[in-house]
Amino acid sequence: MFYHDKKLQYTVRVETPDPRFARMLQQAIGGVEGEIRVMLQYLFQAWGARGPAKYRDMLLETGTEEIAHVEMLATAVAMNLEGAPGSMQEQMAKQNPLVEAVMGGMDPRQYLSAGMAALASDANGVPFDGSHVYASGNLAADMYANVTAEATGRALATRLYHLTDDPGMKDMLSFLIARDTMHQQQWLAVLEELGGQQGVLPIPNSFPQEKEKQDVSYAFFSTAVDGIEPPSGRFTSGPSLDGKGEFSVVKIAPMGQEPKLAPPLPQAHAQLEQMQGGVRPQQTASQALGDSTIEVTPRTTKSKKASSK
Amino acid sequence: MFYHDKKLQYTVRVETPDPRFARMLQQAIGGVEGEIRVMLQYLFQAWGARGPAKYRDMLLETGTEEIAHVEMLATAVAMNLEGAPGSMQEQMAKQNPLVEAVMGGMDPRQYLSAGMAALASDANGVPFDGSHVYASGNLAADMYANVTAEATGRALATRLYHLTDDPGMKDMLSFLIARDTMHQQQWLAVLEELGGQQGVLPIPNSFPQEKEKQDVSYAFFSTAVDGIEPPSGRFTSGPSLDGKGEFSVVKIAPMGQEPKLAPPLPQAHAQLEQMQGGVRPQQTASQALGDSTIEVTPRTTKSKKASSK
Amino acid sequence: MFYHDKKLQYTVRVETPDPRFARMLQQAIGGVEGEIRVMLQYLFQAWGARGPAKYRDMLLETGTEEIAHVEMLATAVAMNLEGAPGSMQEQMAKQNPLVEAVMGGMDPRQYLSAGMAALASDANGVPFDGSHVYASGNLAADMYANVTAEATGRALATRLYHLTDDPGMKDMLSFLIARDTMHQQQWLAVLEELGGQQGVLPIPNSFPQEKEKQDVSYAFFSTAVDGIEPPSGRFTSGPSLDGKGEFSVVKIAPMGQEPKLAPPLPQAHAQLEQMQGGVRPQQTASQALGDSTIEVTPRTTKSKKASSK
Amino acid sequence: MFYHDKKLQYTVRVETPDPRFARMLQQAIGGVEGEIRVMLQYLFQAWGARGPAKYRDMLLETGTEEIAHVEMLATAVAMNLEGAPGSMQEQMAKQNPLVEAVMGGMDPRQYLSAGMAALASDANGVPFDGSHVYASGNLAADMYANVTAEATGRALATRLYHLTDDPGMKDMLSFLIARDTMHQQQWLAVLEELGGQQGVLPIPNSFPQEKEKQDVSYAFFSTAVDGIEPPSGRFTSGPSLDGKGEFSVVKIAPMGQEPKLAPPLPQAHAQLEQMQGGVRPQQTASQALGDSTIEVTPRTTKSKKASSK
Amino acid sequence: MFYHDKKLQYTVRVETPDPRFARMLQQAIGGVEGEIRVMLQYLFQAWGARGPAKYRDMLLETGTEEIAHVEMLATAVAMNLEGAPGSMQEQMAKQNPLVEAVMGGMDPRQYLSAGMAALASDANGVPFDGSHVYASGNLAADMYANVTAEATGRALATRLYHLTDDPGMKDMLSFLIARDTMHQQQWLAVLEELGGQQGVLPIPNSFPQEKEKQDVSYAFFSTAVDGIEPPSGRFTSGPSLDGKGEFSVVKIAPMGQEPKLAPPLPQAHAQLEQMQGGVRPQQTASQALGDSTIEVTPRTTKSKKASSK
Amino acid sequence: MFYHDKKLQYTVRVETPDPRFARMLQQAIGGVEGEIRVMLQYLFQAWGARGPAKYRDMLLETGTEEIAHVEMLATAVAMNLEGAPGSMQEQMAKQNPLVEAVMGGMDPRQYLSAGMAALASDANGVPFDGSHVYASGNLAADMYANVTAEATGRALATRLYHLTDDPGMKDMLSFLIARDTMHQQQWLAVLEELGGQQGVLPIPNSFPQEKEKQDVSYAFFSTAVDGIEPPSGRFTSGPSLDGKGEFSVVKIAPMGQEPKLAPPLPQAHAQLEQMQGGVRPQQTASQALGDSTIEVTPRTTKSKKASSK
Repeated sequence: MFYHDKKLQYTVRVETPDPRFARMLQQAIGGVEGEIRVMLQYLFQAWGARGPAKYRDMLLETGTEEIAHVEMLATAVAMNLEGAPGSMQEQMAKQNPLVEAVMGGMDPRQYLSAGMAALASDANGVPFDGSHVYASGNLAADMYANVTAEATGRALATRLYHLTDDPGMKDMLSFLIARDTMHQQQWLAVLEELGGQQGVLPIPNSFPQEKEKQDVSYAFFSTAVDGIEPPSGRFTSGPSLDGKGEFSVVKIAPMGQEPKLAPPLPQAHAQLEQMQGGVRPQQTASQALGDSTIEVTPRTTKSKKASSK
Repeated sequence: MFYHDKKLQYTVRVETPDPRFARMLQQAIGGVEGEIRVMLQYLFQAWGARGPAKYRDMLLETGTEEIAHVEMLATAVAMNLEGAPGSMQEQMAKQNPLVEAVMGGMDPRQYLSAGMAALASDANGVPFDGSHVYASGNLAADMYANVTAEATGRALATRLYHLTDDPGMKDMLSFLIARDTMHQQQWLAVLEELGGQQGVLPIPNSFPQEKEKQDVSYAFFSTAVDGIEPPSGRFTSGPSLDGKGEFSVVKIAPMGQEPKLAPPLPQAHAQLEQMQGGVRPQQTASQALGDSTIEVTPRTTKSKKASSK
Repeated sequence: MFYHDKKLQYTVRVETPDPRFARMLQQAIGGVEGEIRVMLQYLFQAWGARGPAKYRDMLLETGTEEIAHVEMLATAVAMNLEGAPGSMQEQMAKQNPLVEAVMGGMDPRQYLSAGMAALASDANGVPFDGSHVYASGNLAADMYANVTAEATGRALATRLYHLTDDPGMKDMLSFLIARDTMHQQQWLAVLEELGGQQGVLPIPNSFPQEKEKQDVSYAFFSTAVDGIEPPSGRFTSGPSLDGKGEFSVVKIAPMGQEPKLAPPLPQAHAQLEQMQGGVRPQQTASQALGDSTIEVTPRTTKSKKASSK
Repeated sequence: MFYHDKKLQYTVRVETPDPRFARMLQQAIGGVEGEIRVMLQYLFQAWGARGPAKYRDMLLETGTEEIAHVEMLATAVAMNLEGAPGSMQEQMAKQNPLVEAVMGGMDPRQYLSAGMAALASDANGVPFDGSHVYASGNLAADMYANVTAEATGRALATRLYHLTDDPGMKDMLSFLIARDTMHQQQWLAVLEELGGQQGVLPIPNSFPQEKEKQDVSYAFFSTAVDGIEPPSGRFTSGPSLDGKGEFSVVKIAPMGQEPKLAPPLPQAHAQLEQMQGGVRPQQTASQALGDSTIEVTPRTTKSKKASSK
Repeated sequence: MFYHDKKLQYTVRVETPDPRFARMLQQAIGGVEGEIRVMLQYLFQAWGARGPAKYRDMLLETGTEEIAHVEMLATAVAMNLEGAPGSMQEQMAKQNPLVEAVMGGMDPRQYLSAGMAALASDANGVPFDGSHVYASGNLAADMYANVTAEATGRALATRLYHLTDDPGMKDMLSFLIARDTMHQQQWLAVLEELGGQQGVLPIPNSFPQEKEKQDVSYAFFSTAVDGIEPPSGRFTSGPSLDGKGEFSVVKIAPMGQEPKLAPPLPQAHAQLEQMQGGVRPQQTASQALGDSTIEVTPRTTKSKKASSK
Repeated sequence: MFYHDKKLQYTVRVETPDPRFARMLQQAIGGVEGEIRVMLQYLFQAWGARGPAKYRDMLLETGTEEIAHVEMLATAVAMNLEGAPGSMQEQMAKQNPLVEAVMGGMDPRQYLSAGMAALASDANGVPFDGSHVYASGNLAADMYANVTAEATGRALATRLYHLTDDPGMKDMLSFLIARDTMHQQQWLAVLEELGGQQGVLPIPNSFPQEKEKQDVSYAFFSTAVDGIEPPSGRFTSGPSLDGKGEFSVVKIAPMGQEPKLAPPLPQAHAQLEQMQGGVRPQQTASQALGDSTIEVTPRTTKSKKASSK
């Protein structure tokens, strides 16, 4: 369970409110690289954690920290919406600054729907979407998902850093960027504890590799047409990273058949031509199929009858 | 640009059609761990690739392979929908097998919307969602995103393996599982080429770390209340993975203020009590705010007036 | 900022795991009446709170409690997925219980995507959607939104109560139902503090009512065709609830015009017939519009030219 | 069933078309506070109404009115898109007004997808989403949902009022604002008919309160850490609003256990370390689990075997 | 504007309620082939209609009819939820029919969220999504969109016809199927009025074809690899349907370049290797880029400076 | 299966990068009229094709071509993001062009999430949504869906043509517009092969028309209130397009009943008033319903008991 403090994890200061920057911050709140996502991702991973309790505990620690990050960013949005930026006012002195701010680049819903506050959505106003909460039940897969979240999250924060001159905002972002640095480390450290690449690969490592088609387990498939050389690199030759195979390059070619699906099920109501082989049908649906179409027996049953003759 | 062959990359065979398994396969087609996602993810990464051409080429190679995986799975769905499973027929002999199949566990839209074929959606019928196509412009972040996709993708394929007894389906899955093994390797090999963790961390490595709040860059923050010990592990002490710091544990405490937002902007139409400090207002909106509310000058301008007195 | 305890707010116990009930519980986690929604809703309302600090504090108190409710429910899901229900096993003794559970009514993604744990989605697998986080910036509107969330949430919990016989689950639900009782009270108590209906209506009460079309502010409009009597009730006669008007019934009739939109903008490329009044055009696009279509001057400029003749 | 008139419910007039205001109006059409939502919400409540016919009738009356509101707003959008605003033309005289309008703040899809007309989406172009159609089957819950819709809807309309100077648009909004006033009254009047708070609370009032954990039914839980006073108000002491309890304040503390989930199900393919207690496994998947992993018997069966020894 | 009647457009009768069929009917309510979609599609097309008023009028006529179809289907859902089906009760006599119905195939949200009534979502519980409301502003494109909606809608209705034995349901569907027949005719009749294929093609017919790359306007491109014959048909030879060209077959080959994107923008924070040509960087971010990275001048400005030297 | 070439299908050239046009191009990538949609639509139709193999082959040919169109557009987006437009720089000389570009009209996520590249979303940043992939299993319905996609797609491309002055972009669009011309032809040619309107209508033509309510199969229903004349046209009189009927006009009137739903199911927890006929209940839930509410027998069982008295 959870407790709160009325104070923020780190100071949020805005010297010159900038409604357009308030829109950009939304990406770090409700975007796919944002803080609602990591908060829920780490908490759901904790709540479903099976196996060593230590990782449940760790996920709970950091999931709780992330709630405070959403809070900081939501506060930063609210502060950036307090007043129209000076530059805008100079530029369009005779016009209404609110109108210009809302229409000229801020997220209009921060005004229309939230009355000058943050939303649970991204920089384009797309609502946060829970399908980005990855919690696979496999610890190694989850750690990689978490590294990804913190890598794209830190990239986002460094990009936001260039869209503001406000010292308060730069200071807040320098804190969040540092935390992303640590969190990248943290999830990778777990992978190291689990034995590194040799220990964890292939993920999941609990499926017997004899059951997979091992002749293509370490082959780089080139799908380029003739005349184009495949790229070469660490992934095209030499020992595989799990020490269990050797990389090779294979020019791809069909190993499978040309699929032929069964004719349409009568009750699925394709066109008659599809059911009669493509010739234009000489009969109406009723002539062809009879009254029985509508209570027609399904294909499997029919073919059984056929075979029982 | 792209070409096709009429044959499949690998044989798809179904001995005993199972409409319920056809639903499960949808997760591998349109789910967040599925093949439409990796197909588009690798192709979009290729199409936006900046920097060494080799990685664009590699992404194009594998993105193209993934289209063939969607094709195999869509074909497998169509084949599994051809006939109702035997077990069902025995159980409810007198009933209509189609009705039972549609209502008893298959995805009804495979019949209702697709006439017995695959959909671009997941095992719950949720449509594929393009926001899962991660292509961040940062090569290392993208490689971790790709490892995640292949780790959760392989976990999904091994789980599907247990939901079918069909030898054709098990054979197809053993091929896809092997390809996921390779693709995990492939993206991690790129990270090794880039210098491994010491080379790529923190991601992005092009942001000067002096600009981040470095005193919290390698600190594990414990958010647990008093009396609960933080977990200890590779991530709580010892050198950091990038060789640039030392892990430590910090009991979290507020470093920030209790936020006080400005009063509501008049045009955002909070309740009067919010604008007048919480006492029940003695005046109506018009008495309090006058006709001017509707053309009221914005806060910044007002406070400037106020301070210029 | 936030802290956590490793213990749950209230005991979660499952005597007989039921994978199908685990699906039902998802509605209370990620559904529109669920706990992720109220957690984020109260927290976002707090983080954007302007006006008396007391309400920010209160929202923070309860938003934090709701995180613990998500935790309880996610734990309950994980526990319900531990084993297939007895009834199922009896019914289909020779079959694989996992297969039956996954295919026979549980959310397949709890297995396929989460490895037997909860998801951030609803009982149909639809991901949680942040657009349900209502935080309007108007305190009274938000309190009504919160009452709605707790009323539909309590209805959901009472309905779930009938889908389980498990004493542990019934006990957990009886706790959550009681908290919903209190939370309904809590938000309504704020509305009472704000003066009750006479004080808060119409919401927002900071817009001068003189500016609204007051002759229809208290009129029940009947849209039924002739011969059908409008219903009568508290809302059709007598004083209005805000004490500012008198209810009446008005048979609806058009007060507006039949709209005539301007002809299509050339660059929007309607069909020629739309641009030429509906007769079949005798000319091709180029004859009719000339090369200029592709750099054609916009309508407003044109009509100005026309009117300046 | 339904009929239509070619005339609008109320006059829609635009003196100076403003493509950017056309974007803002989208929030009132397809936004979560918008008219498509209330139209469908009231109609679905009517179509599912069980109990006194009078409320079905009333919902049908008002749901039908709301269709006309969507029509007015869609017409207003189309009219605002007829020509670029004067101010823009002055500012960028030499440029193409269409290009500037589309790129400079209007919803580009109003041009690209609709050829200068309204869309079924919100001010950020997010499509209308049917999950906002609340129709719970509980009359009191639905009435509160409807008050919320009209309270946020009226807040939206008053905010839009400040983004336009057009007298036609202000006139149209003054009509819609007045209708929202009435509709707030209407739904609250039903709650009064049902006995007011004492009659309807807790919602649903058909669940026996003896079955809920009554010792926490009227307790305000404070989740703040030590040293922070909970807020006090109508909701912390005195009689509850339903007359059935007394408010109190409770400092929150865990009433539940620290959850310990069962180890992973073999077929869910967690990492081996999760299945073997966290130590680095000395065995491969096949050594550890054998061939049987892939047809492994599920946990419940296993534990039964175990306990039957 | 709109009016309503309390009676349904056509009788809705259910002899044997079937909760599972109630789920299937959802596809016809909130699915992509469903009635909410056509209702909104025709109404939005009407509300944005530019050109001959006759088509606006026609769209308004039929859009209004479709509201009544949603009503019929929602009523049918509610009626199908009244009681558990007999077959179920026999099968599981000792069990709770409600539990079995909710868990055994019906949409659980019809109970959990709606209290036994219809939802604005499809047969998988995916909410109705306004992006399917096609109203392009081009009359011919819209007519084809409408034919599509009625063709997939009629296919859906005929498929539903096979999932029920209830004479009331079959009767209702036979009415809806007939209306879909008419509506297909209706939209195609408009295309005939507009001159048929020779008149309307290519859509939009108001863009001068001289501006398109006419040498590929009537060529069937074959993307198959060598050795595979392209299919032949009406679309590979003979005059084109608009009478303006001749069909041909072209084996596809690249007409474009291999794309080379510019190196990453410094502020977008790719990895250093991407910015330095792929070799492992010998310098840190700060050594390489200096303090200036964070206020670095953008590429265009830089290259201008460079070229102005 | 699929192959690729490193070259583009057609040259993509950008002379003057325009970040705002890069946003507009997103509609042609991930929008409902865009190329991801047609690529997946044609491929899914091919993969589920039942009936004559020729149509499967054709769909595969063109589906593969469309992947190359997504590639061209994604490349065009990346190129348009290389540098801020000149006009902007002149206008705001002292400001940071990156900041202005991101905040002044481009899609901020092209920078924030993609580091200056394309996204799988539309011009408003709404992610691509797989529910637009129409593949109905009925060939004629699918062909109409494809014509619609190419008609709205060509309308989109011609509209984009007016938003750019760049000769490279105009050249690329002229190619795409020409391909849309061909693809409209292609799908209509299949319908001609299938016998044209007389052959394919009504779709599906495999449902016996005797089973539909034929007296309304060719009737135009007018839903206008008295005094409004229905529009007249090809669809109101004369032979129907399939040659099977005669158009007529029918003034709509209810053919159905006023629906009366059964009272609420006890376990669905409506308000007591709904269950007791609307009078304010004199009893509490427990008095009225007893302990049994929570294990109450369902309605059907009850009514059986009642009728068996």
